[in-house]
Amino acid sequence: MEIGVLGTGLVGRTIGTKLFQLGHEVLLGSRDEANPKAIAWAKKLGGHHALYGNFRNAAAFGEIVFNCTLGAASLDALHQAGAENLKGKILIDVSNPFDYSTEQLSLTVCNTDSLGEQIQRAFPEARVVKTLNTMNFNLMVDPDKIPGRTNVFVSGNDLNAKGKVTMILRDWFGWKSIIDLGDITTSRGVEMYMILWVSLRRVFSEDERLNIKIMTS
Amino acid sequence: MEIGVLGTGLVGRTIGTKLFQLGHEVLLGSRDEANPKAIAWAKKLGGHHALYGNFRNAAAFGEIVFNCTLGAASLDALHQAGAENLKGKILIDVSNPFDYSTEQLSLTVCNTDSLGEQIQRAFPEARVVKTLNTMNFNLMVDPDKIPGRTNVFVSGNDLNAKGKVTMILRDWFGWKSIIDLGDITTSRGVEMYMILWVSLRRVFSEDERLNIKIMTS
Repeated sequence: MEIGVLGTGLVGRTIGTKLFQLGHEVLLGSRDEANPKAIAWAKKLGGHHALYGNFRNAAAFGEIVFNCTLGAASLDALHQAGAENLKGKILIDVSNPFDYSTEQLSLTVCNTDSLGEQIQRAFPEARVVKTLNTMNFNLMVDPDKIPGRTNVFVSGNDLNAKGKVTMILRDWFGWKSIIDLGDITTSRGVEMYMILWVSLRRVFSEDERLNIKIMTS
Repeated sequence: MEIGVLGTGLVGRTIGTKLFQLGHEVLLGSRDEANPKAIAWAKKLGGHHALYGNFRNAAAFGEIVFNCTLGAASLDALHQAGAENLKGKILIDVSNPFDYSTEQLSLTVCNTDSLGEQIQRAFPEARVVKTLNTMNFNLMVDPDKIPGRTNVFVSGNDLNAKGKVTMILRDWFGWKSIIDLGDITTSRGVEMYMILWVSLRRVFSEDERLNIKIMTS
């Protein structure tokens, strides 16, 4: 499959590499067409299946598009990608709306809205599925790094798109406990949880892999 | 020990009953001195160790005070209790700042502030410890209802108070995995997590007991 990945940070490169290893054609998109990290990534993987370009190139290329940009820059990146290149496509939103300008880490949007919802509103013809934002990048594509079947969540309005993303999480990335939280408004919960996650990361600083498991009686 | 419990809802009565069963003297406080739920509670337990009164009576009575009022009403309830009756005491804040007036459940405060912090600022001489707000009332005093040692969190500025609350959680209530998140600003994380918790409660509606377990590799 041809997949576009927006964002050349650790998240974008990790997901892009995993998809490449699974045999997909991946175009890593960034603000500037000639992003050094994207060029190095494509060179390292080699062949014709690891490509790079700008956000517009990545979105146009992908049958599925991952948003792995910084949350505070996501809407701008997606506008650069272009609504016409996202139309009808599954847009997997992995980002968190962290606001690094405040003294203590906070969110740019929360409580009565979320980044997932903002993206879905801004691109009504994209089929937005929020997922994978609740953990460290290296766990996203390798959940067995933590034993005990921890959870990943999906939020979105399009049931068909959520079904496809659930398949990707399970069959491609190896997730065994996937929880469908509901429509895109449930992005609020998974984004707001990240403030607790940041505290937990500080407590368990010796181990950057950390995730939650939902337990019931 | 003499303990004041503010709030006569399910949380207040459940914690009050547990403390009574452990042999403590408990005064359940409400807005009105003659709250029918508090009267019925005291009558049911009987004896001289289950008492009721107004918020001021409860705070004055307790060596330790639990805030089990609705989050949106907590500051008002605590002002009625009186700063002079909370001075120097451990104030265990169990409440969540849910805003029931919005179409979808949200918080009255979050992101750059929290109810835990608001209470600590309003009563600087109380030793506020935020805990137990992340689960259903019946799990608070009976964590083994869910197998597998799920987590409870503590947040607060006073290390001594947190140590005492940790003892209460462990030795009185039976918690085995208690995580100290840090100072009172970490209340933001546990309060904001509740929006995810509400979604999870909807997903696992057949079982109202639900909690998270932090997993690391």
